[in-house]
Amino acid sequence: MNTIGKILTLTTFGESHGPAVGGVLDGMPAGVVIDMDELQHFVDRRRTGQTDGSSSRHEQDRVEVLSGIWQGKTLGTPIGFIIRNTDVRSADYDAIARCYRPNHADYTWQAKYGIRDHRGGGRASARETVARVVAGGIALQALATLGITIDTRVVAQPCVTPPADGDTCGGIIECVCKGVPVGVGEPVFGKLHAQLATAMMSIPSVHGFEYGDGFDMATRCGSEVMDRFVKRPDGTIGTETNHSGGIQGGISNGEDIVMRIAFKPVPTLMRPMPAIDQEGHNVTLPPRGRHDSCVLPRALPIVEAMAALVILDHHLIKKTNVL
Amino acid sequence: MNTIGKILTLTTFGESHGPAVGGVLDGMPAGVVIDMDELQHFVDRRRTGQTDGSSSRHEQDRVEVLSGIWQGKTLGTPIGFIIRNTDVRSADYDAIARCYRPNHADYTWQAKYGIRDHRGGGRASARETVARVVAGGIALQALATLGITIDTRVVAQPCVTPPADGDTCGGIIECVCKGVPVGVGEPVFGKLHAQLATAMMSIPSVHGFEYGDGFDMATRCGSEVMDRFVKRPDGTIGTETNHSGGIQGGISNGEDIVMRIAFKPVPTLMRPMPAIDQEGHNVTLPPRGRHDSCVLPRALPIVEAMAALVILDHHLIKKTNVL
Amino acid sequence: MNTIGKILTLTTFGESHGPAVGGVLDGMPAGVVIDMDELQHFVDRRRTGQTDGSSSRHEQDRVEVLSGIWQGKTLGTPIGFIIRNTDVRSADYDAIARCYRPNHADYTWQAKYGIRDHRGGGRASARETVARVVAGGIALQALATLGITIDTRVVAQPCVTPPADGDTCGGIIECVCKGVPVGVGEPVFGKLHAQLATAMMSIPSVHGFEYGDGFDMATRCGSEVMDRFVKRPDGTIGTETNHSGGIQGGISNGEDIVMRIAFKPVPTLMRPMPAIDQEGHNVTLPPRGRHDSCVLPRALPIVEAMAALVILDHHLIKKTNVL
Amino acid sequence: MNTIGKILTLTTFGESHGPAVGGVLDGMPAGVVIDMDELQHFVDRRRTGQTDGSSSRHEQDRVEVLSGIWQGKTLGTPIGFIIRNTDVRSADYDAIARCYRPNHADYTWQAKYGIRDHRGGGRASARETVARVVAGGIALQALATLGITIDTRVVAQPCVTPPADGDTCGGIIECVCKGVPVGVGEPVFGKLHAQLATAMMSIPSVHGFEYGDGFDMATRCGSEVMDRFVKRPDGTIGTETNHSGGIQGGISNGEDIVMRIAFKPVPTLMRPMPAIDQEGHNVTLPPRGRHDSCVLPRALPIVEAMAALVILDHHLIKKTNVL
Repeated sequence: MNTIGKILTLTTFGESHGPAVGGVLDGMPAGVVIDMDELQHFVDRRRTGQTDGSSSRHEQDRVEVLSGIWQGKTLGTPIGFIIRNTDVRSADYDAIARCYRPNHADYTWQAKYGIRDHRGGGRASARETVARVVAGGIALQALATLGITIDTRVVAQPCVTPPADGDTCGGIIECVCKGVPVGVGEPVFGKLHAQLATAMMSIPSVHGFEYGDGFDMATRCGSEVMDRFVKRPDGTIGTETNHSGGIQGGISNGEDIVMRIAFKPVPTLMRPMPAIDQEGHNVTLPPRGRHDSCVLPRALPIVEAMAALVILDHHLIKKTNVL
Repeated sequence: MNTIGKILTLTTFGESHGPAVGGVLDGMPAGVVIDMDELQHFVDRRRTGQTDGSSSRHEQDRVEVLSGIWQGKTLGTPIGFIIRNTDVRSADYDAIARCYRPNHADYTWQAKYGIRDHRGGGRASARETVARVVAGGIALQALATLGITIDTRVVAQPCVTPPADGDTCGGIIECVCKGVPVGVGEPVFGKLHAQLATAMMSIPSVHGFEYGDGFDMATRCGSEVMDRFVKRPDGTIGTETNHSGGIQGGISNGEDIVMRIAFKPVPTLMRPMPAIDQEGHNVTLPPRGRHDSCVLPRALPIVEAMAALVILDHHLIKKTNVL
Repeated sequence: MNTIGKILTLTTFGESHGPAVGGVLDGMPAGVVIDMDELQHFVDRRRTGQTDGSSSRHEQDRVEVLSGIWQGKTLGTPIGFIIRNTDVRSADYDAIARCYRPNHADYTWQAKYGIRDHRGGGRASARETVARVVAGGIALQALATLGITIDTRVVAQPCVTPPADGDTCGGIIECVCKGVPVGVGEPVFGKLHAQLATAMMSIPSVHGFEYGDGFDMATRCGSEVMDRFVKRPDGTIGTETNHSGGIQGGISNGEDIVMRIAFKPVPTLMRPMPAIDQEGHNVTLPPRGRHDSCVLPRALPIVEAMAALVILDHHLIKKTNVL
Repeated sequence: MNTIGKILTLTTFGESHGPAVGGVLDGMPAGVVIDMDELQHFVDRRRTGQTDGSSSRHEQDRVEVLSGIWQGKTLGTPIGFIIRNTDVRSADYDAIARCYRPNHADYTWQAKYGIRDHRGGGRASARETVARVVAGGIALQALATLGITIDTRVVAQPCVTPPADGDTCGGIIECVCKGVPVGVGEPVFGKLHAQLATAMMSIPSVHGFEYGDGFDMATRCGSEVMDRFVKRPDGTIGTETNHSGGIQGGISNGEDIVMRIAFKPVPTLMRPMPAIDQEGHNVTLPPRGRHDSCVLPRALPIVEAMAALVILDHHLIKKTNVL
């Protein structure tokens, strides 16, 4: 359950305050040129300290690739990689070892496993996503050689600077994939948007996903959202509008793939927080730990990474549609 | 790619105008009592002709279970089942054999496979969902013995009767799962809401998914959506509010699991439709075929079925969390 | 656990005395011409009554394809199919409803599931393999278009006619796959011979698998089993000998793929059989039911089917090795 | 394709002369006590230099666990681990960069991927198995708490000391699993022996697998190999003999699980070796590299590890057989 993908699979591991987080990207085709500096640069976009409102935990996040890439090219073998956790202040979390914070996974994890590494959120920490960004960064480089690009931007956010009084905010990220050819995605359970949905919803704090006109589609008439086909000057078939978000019947139609992902506000406030201990007593936790007040800037490369993994996976699956 | 689930898996097959649609539900525990009349009744909720605005195609949808249930109980072996297609008027679709309708999968399927069964939409038809309802109906009966229930209702729909002038509509369905104990769902890629998302997004016409306060979460401050823990009179721990929709860190917290699913309007209007043929010429298709003008009433049991399959699957996965 | 394969997957269902057995073959590429008569002919090779020593149960085994093949070609959608059970005499098995026969699955199934369909062995019956032969027959036709053929023969069998006095026999089948190009199979856990091994070992009654020189390899020196490379007149590279059985490092090398599969004797003798009932009392079962005294002739197409499914699956996987 | 298992999955990565080999063991239940010294001791059994005839490459093989184990217990999260490659002499392999050695994977890998890390065999090296031993060692500790033990011994080996004149040898390992309760293993494709077969056949150099009486079964009559049931003094049901090797119908029956695995001789001789270069010219390679002349002593813990992973996986799957 720590693996995503069918042909191109990513398995991640690592707790927030353990020695390292990492992953294995398996199924990458052989012979793909990977620029390690570009990869590190992509990973750096997710680091803290790049914007106001990000956590004061400053990890270097040096990507250490252990296998699968040799002399600048993929070998077709699994790409194992780790990122060391270095700036760890576990003592900050002593107070929550026996407490459940609101809107965190403390309670559900304890109930599920009977044990948890509470330090920095353990495995439930968004620190895990650095492994996704590494893998997604590799996938992005492969997609680029196919002429496929992925961009993101923040489209709705109530507060661009950190909210006052220790409060936090969420927001919406829009992701657009350009250059995806017709025919990527599978019908029924492997619909491209269904795979994108599960990939995005698996990012910590995400509460909603939509593609094309999304929820707005639900309030329109059929005649209003019809994407008429046209024959373009270059002889290809396309659509005049893109209410469908580039996907029809679960399969890409050659238009831009457009989706939006809703993030809840960061659950840890820089205020005293009401919590409950394991015996059910109410406690107030002092403002501790290092957290973002708004995750959206750091979430952009995570969204791009997840989109890249899904689209490259389905590009590979598509190759098996013919004998 | 026609399979969903990890321990409890559903594989479906069948084209809209082929001899039958069906499925295999594998991984059902042994010894579960299944009431076949109740199952048929559940499947009947998805049938046409139950409400205004539904298709005039009238299938009996008799469920024929071929294996895995014996003497009223599951055997622990795969449950194979079929539903015959009987009311098939394939000639209605001759006009689209070489045309691509807007907002349908005609074009993407042809591009992907180089061949398609155009009759009634073939495999891309929502007819496939009858197999999901059969499997989900079985899962629901299993969940009921665990005290888990799943309900749905239409929460937003612009037109409750068929829209005027041959137009169509979509809407939003809310699904609530009650009685799910703490600890169901997996961290990271197996988050319960991520699995629910892919299950729901794989239903034809779905364009959006959210859980808890969903997209609205993105516009709120952290302090506004905090679900405070309380110790209840019975000694259990719960939350005062449920902005989180019953899931924290991807794992159920014992509160109601609440999600909303957005459906686009039915793409086939009962009007002349602009289309394009395989050579790129514009054509106008006469209003043909039998379609719903609004799918929401029929979609309710499909949503319940998909929710049941996901939750039962994760109930089984949870058993493996301890040695 | 009733599914095999990665891209090309077969899921089977059905009990021996239920209404039908069947399967879903998913992942077949689109546009492959399938000759249904040839398919039925292949399935007929597995039927009883073709040779001395086979069971007196005579099923017609008419293959009913329900989806995925249209106008003689595969659609790229899942191929659902069933074979009705018609010649069922369940009363023959009343005596074993509460007994465990030696070398059968009666005891282990009862212990595992707490319930079993004892009639004709239920799901544990070799009747399930008819679904494999249908799917494998389709795969064989696809492989034939690629120039790949699969043959089998009985290479060791102590008794070619039914053994005297109601006894039974087993034997060894050799399977040779010709025309498999270099590069099919994956390293590590997806080794071609490891996938062939699990496919063959999953056939009822199989107790051993080897490829190339197999167990005999274990008693030889390295210098004796060295397959020297040679450049052939057509410019291709091959090996002078084939101790390796056409696979090196888990990947086909272009030589014939050669494997042998060992079958135990049929466990049901046509003699009174010592058994035990659920309470642990010794009982003697009269010679009942209809069984083969030697399964090898009927097992030949099953072995061919399983080999075809594995090789076609890996042919498809190989397509994803390059971007 | 670098992953094995269903609930308990192991994914490995790493080339022989890359920075490290490693793996991710996912699905381990939470709360299992792991003794790290015992784990290191188990891994040490696979190291070189423990016996005559083993390679002169001396790796320390220090296991570095990066996640999933905390304060001596499993967390239920994925266990990531690495083992650094330290004693690497890649220059020894320069001569084979453009050559294909007999009975090695050089040729098939080059043909498949168009690129390969030739140093020390790259990913095709048996060095990969150290990751399996780490994961299997963890599984063995979990099984021990359930009263399940796994033992191996060499049962056939032509030469116990290194063969003369630079030649090499193979042999047969027998593996016995004691204490596995009734009901472990799945019917059809998940048969316990079919899963053990693929696990064992995926070990480098393995050419054959059998369980119970194995290939010998094929030459016996049904009456000779019948395992009669008996009621034991403690009230349990067992069998008098164990021709079936502890598995009936793919499911454990409570007797010892017995299997044998055949290893081919080491392909690299300490003699000049005939090879072919990429252009098809015959070349003679000087005796280079560091290799075992007989792998059996080092293979014992690998076999135990693979058996442990399969049996623990199926122990967990069994938990899902009831609601």
